[in-house]
Amino acid sequence: MKFFIVKTVAETLDVIANHFHPIVKPIEVPLIEALDMVLSEDIVAGGQVPHFDRSTVDGFAVRAKDTYGASDSLPAFLTVTGKIEMGKEADQALKEGQAQAIPTGGMLPAGADSIVMIEHVEEIDDLLNVYRQVAPGENIIRAGDDVNAGDLVMAAGQRLRPQDLGVLSAIGITTVRVYPRPVVAILSTGDEIVSPDKKELAPGEVRDINSMTIGAAASQCGAQVIYGGIVADNYEAFAAKAYELFNQADLLLLSGGSSVGTRDYTEQVMQSLGKPGVLVHGVAIKPGKPTIVAKAGEKPVMGLPGHPASALIIFHLFVVPLLKKLQGQSPAQIDQRIRARISRNIPSAVGRSDYIRVKLEERPDGLWAVPVFGKSGLISTLVRSDGMVEIEANKEGILEGDMVSVHLFQ
Amino acid sequence: MKFFIVKTVAETLDVIANHFHPIVKPIEVPLIEALDMVLSEDIVAGGQVPHFDRSTVDGFAVRAKDTYGASDSLPAFLTVTGKIEMGKEADQALKEGQAQAIPTGGMLPAGADSIVMIEHVEEIDDLLNVYRQVAPGENIIRAGDDVNAGDLVMAAGQRLRPQDLGVLSAIGITTVRVYPRPVVAILSTGDEIVSPDKKELAPGEVRDINSMTIGAAASQCGAQVIYGGIVADNYEAFAAKAYELFNQADLLLLSGGSSVGTRDYTEQVMQSLGKPGVLVHGVAIKPGKPTIVAKAGEKPVMGLPGHPASALIIFHLFVVPLLKKLQGQSPAQIDQRIRARISRNIPSAVGRSDYIRVKLEERPDGLWAVPVFGKSGLISTLVRSDGMVEIEANKEGILEGDMVSVHLFQ
Repeated sequence: MKFFIVKTVAETLDVIANHFHPIVKPIEVPLIEALDMVLSEDIVAGGQVPHFDRSTVDGFAVRAKDTYGASDSLPAFLTVTGKIEMGKEADQALKEGQAQAIPTGGMLPAGADSIVMIEHVEEIDDLLNVYRQVAPGENIIRAGDDVNAGDLVMAAGQRLRPQDLGVLSAIGITTVRVYPRPVVAILSTGDEIVSPDKKELAPGEVRDINSMTIGAAASQCGAQVIYGGIVADNYEAFAAKAYELFNQADLLLLSGGSSVGTRDYTEQVMQSLGKPGVLVHGVAIKPGKPTIVAKAGEKPVMGLPGHPASALIIFHLFVVPLLKKLQGQSPAQIDQRIRARISRNIPSAVGRSDYIRVKLEERPDGLWAVPVFGKSGLISTLVRSDGMVEIEANKEGILEGDMVSVHLFQ
Repeated sequence: MKFFIVKTVAETLDVIANHFHPIVKPIEVPLIEALDMVLSEDIVAGGQVPHFDRSTVDGFAVRAKDTYGASDSLPAFLTVTGKIEMGKEADQALKEGQAQAIPTGGMLPAGADSIVMIEHVEEIDDLLNVYRQVAPGENIIRAGDDVNAGDLVMAAGQRLRPQDLGVLSAIGITTVRVYPRPVVAILSTGDEIVSPDKKELAPGEVRDINSMTIGAAASQCGAQVIYGGIVADNYEAFAAKAYELFNQADLLLLSGGSSVGTRDYTEQVMQSLGKPGVLVHGVAIKPGKPTIVAKAGEKPVMGLPGHPASALIIFHLFVVPLLKKLQGQSPAQIDQRIRARISRNIPSAVGRSDYIRVKLEERPDGLWAVPVFGKSGLISTLVRSDGMVEIEANKEGILEGDMVSVHLFQ
């Protein structure tokens, strides 16, 4: 038998970070279709937002110095000379001793420098009694307060969230250049694997789980998925189908069996697709050791473990960052994992990263991560789990009560 | 002027939880389209997964007692009588003193009760030398270990994640009954609001931000979005357009101006759509006080603040749980917010919940939430934020270094 020189989790992540990049040219899409896509260009504002001084309250536009010293007992008296309409310019400038009614969001008239809130005035006969003084700029958003012309509003590599689309709308951008959704093809292999729609299983047969699980996970990451079906453990058939899918996709995922024989096939098939070939053959991780990363031309090809729970854990660890790379997304600046306490001691072998499935529990003293045990072949353990906890390769385990980071399954 | 009796955040969430429910009948969809949809039925397994005893390693199927006492110096000797093929039943039962080669995932032959790993044997001439003893059940997944017939695999109300689709595939389920995606219509109002594709703005005009932001946020929650456009502050036109959209949607969202005049229109329009009418008129929250929740017939109608940042915060707080209710999703069991330390003192008024936009920073001593200040009219503050932190209504503020929960913006 053959022993692989396995890489660590960090080394494997480095391979992914350094060998792959977006291989498809950016496309232009309407903003309305750009949610969750990744910008391929910097966005610089062409104008100001807002492009005029606006009131932030309902009230009266005034000159601040006309209100100085005003109080409940000694109000300032101003003459109301107009009413500003929403979305329109004032038809007259404001002079000393004058006020103009203004709604929230209304445009400040020339000559005014602040707004007195409606709660602090009273109109008595023809005079506006002002009971509070205001400072220049009070209750106003200035032109350019939100965005100034020339501002770098958003950098290439940003995944577009709802608020990002909002600020683009504000500056009048209605189409953006983004990286297209990568096409991910999935092929399951194994003589024992049959389609989920087979009603009665023969002895020894199991239904395909990974196509569905991995396909759904890839589409959550913004990929378009080609379901390649199932191919038997026959090198010719496997290689032919893999080649066909490889040509249609930006990333080919092979969900192999976990037997040595199948792993050998998978590796040979991956090598047959092109140079440089296999970059990572096996990772020091549990579960998920038989993970293979290859590159054929510029395209990535990955071999995932056959066990469904292992395959999904490997997807979260390695395929998610790979899909981000293929979409040109900037690496996350912060660790968005949830912190919780582990509910029991878990031993681990040094030199290997262990991933423990956990269920989160809210207890009076905080959030706890309760391990969900089960062999890596079991998919039901993942259904009962909220996420996974890493025990790093240099640790002999974690102790009950230790604070751990939980990578949530979405 | 008119003062509203505002509700607290908790009271508003109670109104949403108690008054609304899925209004559209469940539909049957293929599993491949069911990702992120919510199950409307309990799923009970009809059979076992796996439905036979499987090997978890490459090795030899044996009778455990034939290996008892085996060691490197004193191996057990067994006769290899066959090789099990993946996906097939063994063609013969295993008798005392025999072994059969078996791959990972292969079906245990009758008569065998355990597997010796390939690493612990040697075939010498015609004899299998076994250097380790195994216990009955060792290296085997038993029939039903993953799922047993009659198990409640998943309950109604579950949002389907990739692993959930996987376990459904495993039990041969290829279509599921789910709640259809709710249809959300969005209408922006305000005389100052113009379409984002207007190139040159007149004085006083601003481009519509909320349609894009709120529409994108709703589609992230699984809704189908009808963009209703912009209507001027004219009761007849506003009411007519709102009525038209209300009839097409399961939830109508009105993004009103924040002036008292516009709020009054919005409330009148909401009342005009049907009984019981407005349930919540204003929430003790900053930003987002002018939030309105109404019910017309069985349908929810919500008025969001006009300020873009306020509107999105209110969306996260109230529309997200409402959309979950409309999709029949069971309430989350756990608080999935991230914990961080706040980087400075923030005062707050008692009796009002404050929501502070924050940026997360990874520092040597852990994760910190750094407030992003800016008036609620500014959308760019949200672009710079990773999430928001609540200062509860009963608090006078939070102190630098306090641990806070951060609700992430996706």
